Amino acid sequence: MIDNLISGVIMTGFEIEVLRLGHRLGRDPRITTHLALVSRAMGASNFVLAGDEDEKLFSNIHSVNERFGHGLSCRYEKSPMRMLREIANSDEESKPIIIHLTMYGEPFKEVIPNIPKDKPVVVVVGGAKVPGELFKVSDFNIAVGNQPHSEVAALALFLDSWTDGEGFNREFSEPQLVISPSKSGKDVKEVL
Amino acid sequence: MIDNLISGVIMTGFEIEVLRLGHRLGRDPRITTHLALVSRAMGASNFVLAGDEDEKLFSNIHSVNERFGHGLSCRYEKSPMRMLREIANSDEESKPIIIHLTMYGEPFKEVIPNIPKDKPVVVVVGGAKVPGELFKVSDFNIAVGNQPHSEVAALALFLDSWTDGEGFNREFSEPQLVISPSKSGKDVKEVL
Repeated sequence: MIDNLISGVIMTGFEIEVLRLGHRLGRDPRITTHLALVSRAMGASNFVLAGDEDEKLFSNIHSVNERFGHGLSCRYEKSPMRMLREIANSDEESKPIIIHLTMYGEPFKEVIPNIPKDKPVVVVVGGAKVPGELFKVSDFNIAVGNQPHSEVAALALFLDSWTDGEGFNREFSEPQLVISPSKSGKDVKEVL
Repeated sequence: MIDNLISGVIMTGFEIEVLRLGHRLGRDPRITTHLALVSRAMGASNFVLAGDEDEKLFSNIHSVNERFGHGLSCRYEKSPMRMLREIANSDEESKPIIIHLTMYGEPFKEVIPNIPKDKPVVVVVGGAKVPGELFKVSDFNIAVGNQPHSEVAALALFLDSWTDGEGFNREFSEPQLVISPSKSGKDVKEVL
């Protein structure tokens, strides 16, 4: 993998954007925050929020970036289905592959080896109600197990598998705190 | 792996109990529900809740068991640290191994091969504040990445690795609904 330094964010060779559909302010802030933090920790460079706008969520992620190192950009998308349609209909060679995580899809560990790795991916994580069109506009509908569980777990397992376990090895720029592995305590270094 | 039929729950050879510490009624119900659903979907047979009691959470899991098949028992534990201390101090050969998931621990993929697989495990998932004693009473303090992200993601990645990817192959007894993999739609069977 080649490391690139793009606008202060040190990235691995993977180009991963995570799109969260249908965020609801009253109900979803913690789950969506976990989705963004998993994206950040496991190799995604962009997190795109759709549904309700949520400045507080963005400021939480910004604060994690400040403390633990920059590694994830966030933005809001008002028309996520239009965004996906435009990607799907694009003629560009380098257009991203759309991967929809859904409990109804095909088994992730069987499908992932068939997905080209030389292109960027948009990983779509559904919300409460997902439009049927999403199944058609996506290049792959992938299930992380066919039982109800958690979009946070599904995203983490997908990213781990997609990055061949390398997701957690991504680097972060300018951290204030660095946590190192420890057998039975806490090893936290403050970077001055 | 040998399949056992225990009190109506078809289990794989793994004996996994997940203990969630410090549940807070006002803040945690969705995250803790996701923890329980991940436990159920990925091979745990017991989910133990500590912190605030939460009948609604148990009834949600019961309802998932009813619809998608029985596979997880839930119980509340008032004194989780005493429970763990008793396990740690027990002389019994068959006592469970205590595995604490924490962002401060050792890398999970390096540690897991060193954990004996012929014993039951209690996987401890911390809450907002974790007593320092937990690091000592645990046989293993395991980090799923050393960045802040999500206890739901950490549990899922641990269980996937611990069960060698077999967690999702567990079976459930008497489901009313069965979801099968599909390339671009929903394949839901109702069992009458």
